[in-house]
Amino acid sequence: MSTPESWMRRALDLARQGAGHVSPNPMVGAVLVDPSGEVLGEGCHGRFGGPHAEVEAVRDVEARGHADQLAEATLYVTLEPCSHHGKTPPCTDLILARTIPRVVVAMQDPFPEVAGRGLARLREAGVDVRVGVLEPEAKRLNEAFVWHVTTGRPLVTLKLAQTLDGQIATASGDSRWVSSEASRTLVHRWRAESDAVLVGAGTARADDPALTVRHVNGPQPLRIVLDRTGALPESLQVFDDQQADRTLAVIGSSAQPAYAGTLLARGGLLLRVPECDGHLDLRYLLTVLGSGDGIEQPIQSLLVEAGSGLATALLAQDLVDRLFVFIAPKVLGTGTSSLGDLRIGRMADALTFAESAWEPVGPDMLLRGYRRAV
Amino acid sequence: MSTPESWMRRALDLARQGAGHVSPNPMVGAVLVDPSGEVLGEGCHGRFGGPHAEVEAVRDVEARGHADQLAEATLYVTLEPCSHHGKTPPCTDLILARTIPRVVVAMQDPFPEVAGRGLARLREAGVDVRVGVLEPEAKRLNEAFVWHVTTGRPLVTLKLAQTLDGQIATASGDSRWVSSEASRTLVHRWRAESDAVLVGAGTARADDPALTVRHVNGPQPLRIVLDRTGALPESLQVFDDQQADRTLAVIGSSAQPAYAGTLLARGGLLLRVPECDGHLDLRYLLTVLGSGDGIEQPIQSLLVEAGSGLATALLAQDLVDRLFVFIAPKVLGTGTSSLGDLRIGRMADALTFAESAWEPVGPDMLLRGYRRAV
Repeated sequence: MSTPESWMRRALDLARQGAGHVSPNPMVGAVLVDPSGEVLGEGCHGRFGGPHAEVEAVRDVEARGHADQLAEATLYVTLEPCSHHGKTPPCTDLILARTIPRVVVAMQDPFPEVAGRGLARLREAGVDVRVGVLEPEAKRLNEAFVWHVTTGRPLVTLKLAQTLDGQIATASGDSRWVSSEASRTLVHRWRAESDAVLVGAGTARADDPALTVRHVNGPQPLRIVLDRTGALPESLQVFDDQQADRTLAVIGSSAQPAYAGTLLARGGLLLRVPECDGHLDLRYLLTVLGSGDGIEQPIQSLLVEAGSGLATALLAQDLVDRLFVFIAPKVLGTGTSSLGDLRIGRMADALTFAESAWEPVGPDMLLRGYRRAV
Repeated sequence: MSTPESWMRRALDLARQGAGHVSPNPMVGAVLVDPSGEVLGEGCHGRFGGPHAEVEAVRDVEARGHADQLAEATLYVTLEPCSHHGKTPPCTDLILARTIPRVVVAMQDPFPEVAGRGLARLREAGVDVRVGVLEPEAKRLNEAFVWHVTTGRPLVTLKLAQTLDGQIATASGDSRWVSSEASRTLVHRWRAESDAVLVGAGTARADDPALTVRHVNGPQPLRIVLDRTGALPESLQVFDDQQADRTLAVIGSSAQPAYAGTLLARGGLLLRVPECDGHLDLRYLLTVLGSGDGIEQPIQSLLVEAGSGLATALLAQDLVDRLFVFIAPKVLGTGTSSLGDLRIGRMADALTFAESAWEPVGPDMLLRGYRRAV
């Protein structure tokens, strides 16, 4: 059990505790271990602006009365320690000040300008540095952070819930409920761990979803509603409920929505984006969301709870980074298909995944499909 | 490990060795165990007309030199021992002759006329009899046998292989390949364990499937091709290959297929069934297959490798007993849906399963959905 991989796995588990609380920072976890394989202390980056994982782990060691053992310890940390002054002092300074002799890192900092600098600083000071333990897992954990750093756009997770035969609703639109309570609760966990959730106008109108975080504890993501024509009724929950200040309506070039005044008065946001062939320019929208222009902060992670039209549009433009599909063990026959035409003419050209994993959730099966390699 | 359930599980594993070889008999396995929990011997019903599992197990005990221990042994057997003279003498006689004092049985014989007689015979003779250990598993194992006994029709397993979004082919019909090699090999195993496999005319024409057992060892099931109009070309593999004597063409009331003469000359079969609203009467067909009239033996288990039309027709008429669906982690968008209109208007009315199980097969996920409770 006491392998570098096992300690790093523990550090990754700790890192996950920051999910939903640290954006736009990455999730980071750290474990300090003595030469005999005893844990001296551990910590994670728990909230944006708060102490880094390395700091929390060192503090934990000191609180446990093991400060004198730091000079013999190994630090396992899921991300390269920072070497620059940000909201907190550089973690490399702390490591050197405590004379921690060995540092094992899962992945380099993804920022091109700083990648490797923290490691170089430690190595120059004589610290034994190893990089790459559970690197794929660490990259997947902070996939949204890395993707946003790399592309400027949020990582887009498209969630679908369908019957065995690929239907998300009946022909008349009845979709209550396709998937099990366990699956629906997991979606609320995903909402809490995302910077924003997004629905199209069709879903907003048909289902009037609250898009709030229920069934689990966690922060409320920004609620984004696409409304190209501005025709959605102001009675919708997202415009009218207590969390209207967490709603962003995305409208087309000439839309004049009736709810605009009320929404803005309640602290909500309105974003006008260009149209392209009678549709909102989704790529443009993602770039704006990633930049944070006109909204509170850059959106790194976006959960799309789409109907067929929006799901198809995003896939067709290769804007889906992760496709998470719940499949319920029931059969509907003709209804509303989860996806429309993707203009794929040969089975050999079907969209595939760089990585995928099946996971049972209650009676349903969940496929987590990752379109991008890490 | 040495619980009645564990011994019965072993007996069920033994029973499975007869899959594909014992029809129209049930699969049966038996284990004889001494009071300390040592296996004295075991056996299964291995081929139609061959010795019953109880006989094989007793012979195994004797071959191992443990005959003198039978008078203290417990017999675990997956099906009630027979008490009537069939192709072999009654197993109850053997049990009494060897003075086996305890018999544990998973399930009663499903034949209403004999159910319980074997058990009663044993009890009257003073044998300690227990019934119902792993009964659901035993009933599921011999589901086709029991269903056939009960309804006179074969148990229909509908196999589908689809993309994540429920497409079995592109719009133009390209379906090579939807599922993985591991999944396709498993289908060959299912073929070998079925009395017959069936395809519709559309699939026969589009894919020209051989419907033979490859990739695994096992007997060749009867190949049934639906051809209502009799218009299928005689060049199809099922009419033209070395196993044409294992082909049954099902034609409508007025069809005059060009391949009729050749097929019959090669030892194949032709079956004319009534039509109903321009379709073959599928319920009638199943009843004929179950009766064995005009074919070699009654068909207890039928594997349907259907396209969308036949799959939908069977489901709509509630003629599918088991729906086995492979889902490949790929996305096609609009293509050929696995199922058509089932006239289900509300999500709450979607077809569900009495029992279902998910099972990973290579990169694919398999749902085994059982429409009937056992």
